Amino acid sequence: MTTKYIKELSKQVGLVPGTLVHIGRERTEDVKITLIDYDEADFEEKEAQNIEECSLVKKTPKVSWVNISGVHDIELIEKVGKEFDLHPLVQEDIVNTGLRPKLEDFETYLFVSLKMLYNKGDNGEIIAEQVSLVLGKNFVLSFQEQEGDVFEIIRERLRKAKGRIRKQGADYLLYALMDAIVDNYFIILEGLGEKIEILEDKLVKNPTPKTLQSIHNMKRDLLFLRKAIWPLREVISTLSKSESRLIKGSTEVYLRDVYDHMIQVIDTVETFRDMISGILDVYLSSISNRMNEVMKVLTIFAAIFIPLTFIAGIYGMNFKYMPELDWHYGYFGVLGFMGIVAIGLIFFFKRKKWF
Amino acid sequence: MTTKYIKELSKQVGLVPGTLVHIGRERTEDVKITLIDYDEADFEEKEAQNIEECSLVKKTPKVSWVNISGVHDIELIEKVGKEFDLHPLVQEDIVNTGLRPKLEDFETYLFVSLKMLYNKGDNGEIIAEQVSLVLGKNFVLSFQEQEGDVFEIIRERLRKAKGRIRKQGADYLLYALMDAIVDNYFIILEGLGEKIEILEDKLVKNPTPKTLQSIHNMKRDLLFLRKAIWPLREVISTLSKSESRLIKGSTEVYLRDVYDHMIQVIDTVETFRDMISGILDVYLSSISNRMNEVMKVLTIFAAIFIPLTFIAGIYGMNFKYMPELDWHYGYFGVLGFMGIVAIGLIFFFKRKKWF
Amino acid sequence: MTTKYIKELSKQVGLVPGTLVHIGRERTEDVKITLIDYDEADFEEKEAQNIEECSLVKKTPKVSWVNISGVHDIELIEKVGKEFDLHPLVQEDIVNTGLRPKLEDFETYLFVSLKMLYNKGDNGEIIAEQVSLVLGKNFVLSFQEQEGDVFEIIRERLRKAKGRIRKQGADYLLYALMDAIVDNYFIILEGLGEKIEILEDKLVKNPTPKTLQSIHNMKRDLLFLRKAIWPLREVISTLSKSESRLIKGSTEVYLRDVYDHMIQVIDTVETFRDMISGILDVYLSSISNRMNEVMKVLTIFAAIFIPLTFIAGIYGMNFKYMPELDWHYGYFGVLGFMGIVAIGLIFFFKRKKWF
Amino acid sequence: MTTKYIKELSKQVGLVPGTLVHIGRERTEDVKITLIDYDEADFEEKEAQNIEECSLVKKTPKVSWVNISGVHDIELIEKVGKEFDLHPLVQEDIVNTGLRPKLEDFETYLFVSLKMLYNKGDNGEIIAEQVSLVLGKNFVLSFQEQEGDVFEIIRERLRKAKGRIRKQGADYLLYALMDAIVDNYFIILEGLGEKIEILEDKLVKNPTPKTLQSIHNMKRDLLFLRKAIWPLREVISTLSKSESRLIKGSTEVYLRDVYDHMIQVIDTVETFRDMISGILDVYLSSISNRMNEVMKVLTIFAAIFIPLTFIAGIYGMNFKYMPELDWHYGYFGVLGFMGIVAIGLIFFFKRKKWF
Amino acid sequence: MTTKYIKELSKQVGLVPGTLVHIGRERTEDVKITLIDYDEADFEEKEAQNIEECSLVKKTPKVSWVNISGVHDIELIEKVGKEFDLHPLVQEDIVNTGLRPKLEDFETYLFVSLKMLYNKGDNGEIIAEQVSLVLGKNFVLSFQEQEGDVFEIIRERLRKAKGRIRKQGADYLLYALMDAIVDNYFIILEGLGEKIEILEDKLVKNPTPKTLQSIHNMKRDLLFLRKAIWPLREVISTLSKSESRLIKGSTEVYLRDVYDHMIQVIDTVETFRDMISGILDVYLSSISNRMNEVMKVLTIFAAIFIPLTFIAGIYGMNFKYMPELDWHYGYFGVLGFMGIVAIGLIFFFKRKKWF
Repeated sequence: MTTKYIKELSKQVGLVPGTLVHIGRERTEDVKITLIDYDEADFEEKEAQNIEECSLVKKTPKVSWVNISGVHDIELIEKVGKEFDLHPLVQEDIVNTGLRPKLEDFETYLFVSLKMLYNKGDNGEIIAEQVSLVLGKNFVLSFQEQEGDVFEIIRERLRKAKGRIRKQGADYLLYALMDAIVDNYFIILEGLGEKIEILEDKLVKNPTPKTLQSIHNMKRDLLFLRKAIWPLREVISTLSKSESRLIKGSTEVYLRDVYDHMIQVIDTVETFRDMISGILDVYLSSISNRMNEVMKVLTIFAAIFIPLTFIAGIYGMNFKYMPELDWHYGYFGVLGFMGIVAIGLIFFFKRKKWF
Repeated sequence: MTTKYIKELSKQVGLVPGTLVHIGRERTEDVKITLIDYDEADFEEKEAQNIEECSLVKKTPKVSWVNISGVHDIELIEKVGKEFDLHPLVQEDIVNTGLRPKLEDFETYLFVSLKMLYNKGDNGEIIAEQVSLVLGKNFVLSFQEQEGDVFEIIRERLRKAKGRIRKQGADYLLYALMDAIVDNYFIILEGLGEKIEILEDKLVKNPTPKTLQSIHNMKRDLLFLRKAIWPLREVISTLSKSESRLIKGSTEVYLRDVYDHMIQVIDTVETFRDMISGILDVYLSSISNRMNEVMKVLTIFAAIFIPLTFIAGIYGMNFKYMPELDWHYGYFGVLGFMGIVAIGLIFFFKRKKWF
Repeated sequence: MTTKYIKELSKQVGLVPGTLVHIGRERTEDVKITLIDYDEADFEEKEAQNIEECSLVKKTPKVSWVNISGVHDIELIEKVGKEFDLHPLVQEDIVNTGLRPKLEDFETYLFVSLKMLYNKGDNGEIIAEQVSLVLGKNFVLSFQEQEGDVFEIIRERLRKAKGRIRKQGADYLLYALMDAIVDNYFIILEGLGEKIEILEDKLVKNPTPKTLQSIHNMKRDLLFLRKAIWPLREVISTLSKSESRLIKGSTEVYLRDVYDHMIQVIDTVETFRDMISGILDVYLSSISNRMNEVMKVLTIFAAIFIPLTFIAGIYGMNFKYMPELDWHYGYFGVLGFMGIVAIGLIFFFKRKKWF
Repeated sequence: MTTKYIKELSKQVGLVPGTLVHIGRERTEDVKITLIDYDEADFEEKEAQNIEECSLVKKTPKVSWVNISGVHDIELIEKVGKEFDLHPLVQEDIVNTGLRPKLEDFETYLFVSLKMLYNKGDNGEIIAEQVSLVLGKNFVLSFQEQEGDVFEIIRERLRKAKGRIRKQGADYLLYALMDAIVDNYFIILEGLGEKIEILEDKLVKNPTPKTLQSIHNMKRDLLFLRKAIWPLREVISTLSKSESRLIKGSTEVYLRDVYDHMIQVIDTVETFRDMISGILDVYLSSISNRMNEVMKVLTIFAAIFIPLTFIAGIYGMNFKYMPELDWHYGYFGVLGFMGIVAIGLIFFFKRKKWF
Repeated sequence: MTTKYIKELSKQVGLVPGTLVHIGRERTEDVKITLIDYDEADFEEKEAQNIEECSLVKKTPKVSWVNISGVHDIELIEKVGKEFDLHPLVQEDIVNTGLRPKLEDFETYLFVSLKMLYNKGDNGEIIAEQVSLVLGKNFVLSFQEQEGDVFEIIRERLRKAKGRIRKQGADYLLYALMDAIVDNYFIILEGLGEKIEILEDKLVKNPTPKTLQSIHNMKRDLLFLRKAIWPLREVISTLSKSESRLIKGSTEVYLRDVYDHMIQVIDTVETFRDMISGILDVYLSSISNRMNEVMKVLTIFAAIFIPLTFIAGIYGMNFKYMPELDWHYGYFGVLGFMGIVAIGLIFFFKRKKWF
């Protein structure tokens, strides 16, 4: 996962800074631009054919939200950059989907980049997609790698004027979008939590080398998750303490709330890491215990039957003169002696609590 | 424990911020509202039927304490929120019982959320319940998940006018409630300490794979405890240094005292963690030692009897011409030789200090 | 050790803050009050019958030192508290001998709590006793759990007017008392250092499971020591940078000196911890090495004699037609062949450097 | 690698500070001085024969870039130092190629030292070469150990006036050079990522002691990389927040961008370290698993055949009176009994899930 | 090493602060006082018989350097203290050679204490000797445990007026002395680096329990080194940022240079520690690998020959009626069958890649 991303990043090496190169999974989907304009009274939603349709939103006093799904269309991003006067490095960051979550304050606008997480496929591989947000005076631009459904909740809330969202400015919209993304992390964590429970169950019932592989994979997933999530904490913290004119005081308490959720997410990831490392410990010592078991079985069998075989071997010798051989009950006597030896050894191992 | 909580948290995903959703154990108990009004001279205590009865407390100069047991009654919490003018996010935090301990200063009131710990059932499972406290100008609101007995001590002190509590303001009451909760942690730690002692005893006497499971469980309990307690340290520290008008200077020294207790709790948890990890080390190397024991037994048996059996095997061969077989004392000679070999090997292992 | 203390601490749960409850080892010794009054010219020392005798010391310009041995006498501590106007929480801290080292500045007096360490009994168990110090305008109060001899050095110096102590104020006396306690730590560390040397010796000569137990005990001792000492560093650092009127500038350089000693103590404890964990590593891999030894012995015996026994077994078969059996030198031929096999195997293991 | 460098460093011991001693790989290549002069309109590039040719660049308003490949020519560096008025310690740092990345602000110029990384040879050994950069009012001096191709990109951009580089000052050139070096790190990381993938593959298919050696080597490579890269983060961070007159505000956002790349590089190195340590864990427990396998095979063989051999041994005894021997179907009866014993043991091991 | 030092430290316990007690290796060497007086023009060097000869240096405008070899002469140190007005605690620190590196600013003079490192004896044991430096207005006092040759370099430079040292003040001399000591650390590190290389070689060729002992010793050496060096970093950092009048601005850049060297030393020590812990890992898993090897040999021998012996055992039974025994080629048939079994098992183990 990581190594794949690294490969793509080197595509960028040697280019002029600010040159847009799409870094990330190959995409062929069509790009989609959605424009939402609202204030407390009105609400308008439409799909835009090109970015020029969106340009006038900057002039109306309403709050505008331009959502662009598909950042692999370099030309489009360049047009957006020109239209909304975004710094070339911001444009570069939008199309480079391997970015670490970050916040950049350009005075007239704020740029926030963060990760949306999905479970994909049957074995629930975790996929991270990049979301870039730009907060301007009365607009928010959001860039997604592909059309996702995480923001649908917000759209619905805007359409139905649920909660306070229609009464608030663009900064509240930014908060709402970030909150939707962070809330989504809990679903990922839920999935991981279930996997850990299954793992613990397996561990108790029948640990196999496959269990180790699962533990190892889980560790890597958590490593990956941590890398995607951890820097976001700093971003949200900085945002909630930001002195930017673009963030109103009343929004700050909401940002602190996202921050609390973020801390909870990180706490849970750390707890999961501790749990996994505990599971690994138990796994490793269960291997040792099993080896002990195997060794005991071997030792008991060997220690009982090797001496008996030796006794049998003695009376299998072909010496001319072996008086016992001629005794009438010699055979039964030896069998009896063997039985006593065997019972004695079994007692010996019982006392050692070997079985 | 953790994973279960995570499952519930995702209930909240996608809701309007400030929407109240009860997160936590399912509850069916009745909600109970207790109202206590006091100053140095008077003391009044009653059970309120609805929250409106409590609303006038804000106007009297006396200190009022409204305790609400049962935060699963969403409607009630909303009414309280309206009555006492609490921010929607505070209301959300009160009903979300999976919250991390936190402190929020809203100028006109302070919001503190922390964990109360119980031992439940025979095996002493540790249960964390959330307590939310709101400190207003001359009142304290406290929210518990269910009726507990930790606050009974404070009520008793108020009724009997013990100590300085009746002479002090609402901030001292807040302190007293927090102190009662933190003091209660010591009882939990006492229980854990006893469990660790039992574990150490078992370890010396007869370590089994079950011991490992106990160590593992203890580790998880401590992990859980740490997560519930650790952030409270920060909360109390911030509170004791707070510049809020709601906290009087004379109360600060008491808050610093709770802080000291808190540090002691955390210290003890960390010490327990170190002890548990020491116990794990001893357990693991005791497994290795046992394996060594088993191997020695096997090796001694095998190394003594395999050569002897070989000698017996030689004289069991059916060669026509084997001069020893015809010797009169050949048999006894071989037996004697076997005895010498056996004694020699026993000496060899004795010198190696194998037994 | 820790768990025992925790048990006592919960005695305090539910009491009014500032209620004095003696926490610590049960004591029955008599309480002893010693009063020393001095300036550069005069020196007076007497044993006081009750605390009222000491009260006038506050009015004289001389420096007074009141030492109280035995903090289990709750009533006495309360009287002292009243007499010297100590905050109820300070009184609580004095009798709670399980306190973490701390410093509290009450403007008119400073409260310092720290640990005195003793070796007790034959196996040198480390005992921590609490010493509480109160620095007033021209007096120092010191509280010990029982009469100790650590402060005798200071008394001697005062009597004989050795060094600058008689010329200096109460703050220098406070320093001198703390210095005596910290210096005493070096004796404890010396004892531990010797134990570690013995442990290393054992490890090289003949490691047994008992060695592991010793390592484990040492680890716990160091954990305990660390917990008792570590916070003192912070206390002394704060004291030496304190802006309190009670500490003169000329004393600060002495406090920095105690601080340096403190750092040295902590450094040594940390070094000991590193050494112990190194010893544990060596112990564990010596177990593995031993197992290797055992396995090699087993394998060599088994691998040499099992094939030979097989050969003997072949010629022990009773087939009618086995031409070798009739050969005249068949027997010696087989013995020779066995010898060659044995020598070959021995060479094989020699080349593998197994012995 | 490290130890070799240390050997060279001690060459410097005892010299007058500021004495130039070349520390690093022995070099015999010719030194090459390249001079580039440009502004938005003009561009001039030439190879200089001696440093004096470059001296006039300080007076023109154009931006000048003097690149010197080969720092082993002490005399030349001294001349440059004189010409551009560099502090003796800076000159010392330029020729000491074992330096840690650092930034030094001398008011009239900034000195930056960092590492360029190469893969060398077939097995991709990582080589670190030192690059020193000096930023003056309108010039940049760059010093390389040997002629490299990393800066060629920048030269090309300058020649073709690509991007904004020709319109910007010397500080932007400094940024561009640093950016080129940091971008180059991604290529190194890509190579390491591939190696890790190969290692993981090997681990699953057939782990051998050689795999361990590879893991160990990778760990050392990452250790080396980390040491070379980590301090650069601090350097770039300080630079981007620098108050130096030499850095314009518009360049700061670019420096922050390099900083973000740097963080990404460090993150990746840390992730690789975590992955390697995970791989080591899996390797170690796969050894344990293999041992378990081996032991099981041994135990199954021994536990089945040793008892059977014992039975055969019994009927190989030569007692006169052994009634079974005379039974007509005794032989087949014993064979059948042996079969039953064998099947029973196989069942026993099957139920234990040993195979 | 550590434990020995601790023993001596307790000599000091109970003494009046500022009492001089020599702590460190017993010394009998004569004490030697060297006085060097210089400015840009003049240079004078002489051996002083007593400290009074040095006292007038304080009055001349020239820079004076008084070097005292041998701090076990308590009386002398006391005289020096009196002469140069050193605080009693400084005098105590000079003779206590177990001190942690520290810096103390007494306004009229600065006190610096640090460690000089030597390799001693054949096995290159690392010895730390204490050097104390006092920087006054125009003089430097240096105290060594015994006459060393590290400062000879500086003397030579002064005599020959090499570099800028004669043109600079006493603060530059202080820097030069510290630089000489830190530079000397690189020689120690070089020796350690070589030892680590040898250790790695041994590890690959033939690891023995002795290798483990070497690893363990190296770890302790690094622990010791780290403890002696680490605090010096802080000391130099504080010195280079010091606001003391005694340090001129032009000297600060040199102190920053020593600081950089110091960081490099610490970096190298940390790298060595990481390398050693990697070596330990490889050692431990090589033990496991060896055990695997041993087990495989045992299992192969046992699993091949035990079944064969069983077959031989069957035909060694003495049943009357065993038809195979009478077959003419029965014997050869059984031998053939045994051969097939053996080859089958060898194939089985080959497919398991056991050899």
